[in-house]
Amino acid sequence: MIQHIDHIGIAVASLDESVPLFERLLGRPCDGIETVEDQHVRTAFFRFGSMSLELLEPLEGNTGVAAFLEKRGQGMHHVAFASDDVAADLNRIGSAGARLIDSVPRPGAGGKCVGFVHPKSASGVLVELCGKNGGS
Amino acid sequence: MIQHIDHIGIAVASLDESVPLFERLLGRPCDGIETVEDQHVRTAFFRFGSMSLELLEPLEGNTGVAAFLEKRGQGMHHVAFASDDVAADLNRIGSAGARLIDSVPRPGAGGKCVGFVHPKSASGVLVELCGKNGGS
Repeated sequence: MIQHIDHIGIAVASLDESVPLFERLLGRPCDGIETVEDQHVRTAFFRFGSMSLELLEPLEGNTGVAAFLEKRGQGMHHVAFASDDVAADLNRIGSAGARLIDSVPRPGAGGKCVGFVHPKSASGVLVELCGKNGGS
Repeated sequence: MIQHIDHIGIAVASLDESVPLFERLLGRPCDGIETVEDQHVRTAFFRFGSMSLELLEPLEGNTGVAAFLEKRGQGMHHVAFASDDVAADLNRIGSAGARLIDSVPRPGAGGKCVGFVHPKSASGVLVELCGKNGGS
């Protein structure tokens, strides 16, 4: 079941340039910067309770975020919903006729299990479902 | 001061088409549909605790959302942060060198006081600050 909004992902060309802009905007320092090797991305995050704003900088080898920047420029890239069972939600959504990028969950950042729904089935929005650490 | 993420705004061509897509995705009915006359927009919202996902359909006379759809197609349009003092936050952000769309707050949806920061000062993201009902 979809529980809450987990994070908003923003595609940026350079964290070095964008982190100071968002720190100025939000009036506080970012809560951390991490490299997610298997997604070829470097991410800076600002936490707001159970959700966060994440800036995503593509590293060499990245395809999704890099292609987005090439095509649309910097901006909001995806919205992620926390799910208590990513496999079941993907199955429910796919069975109802939505186009899925992932028909089954795959490992994502921070040990979370994730799955993506195609923007064509969400009015142009790339939707991520993400589970708990090490969970389903 | 910026307190939390208030909502994500998604530009859509038609609520009649998009609401069922998001209801299927989220597994629950939308929490309401409202027409915001002075912004020439019809909005459908899904609440998640203190924040919401808002689908925005431009009505005749709308400029911002309609232009966005024309240029970029459907998708994530803006992110809004709740502020306990929109005027003070706009002043703080503008004084620090950011480009503002609104240098002072103006009335927004639901009696809230709002102000926008230009995407050029937020890595391509249109940022809204919104206050409390009838507040500053």
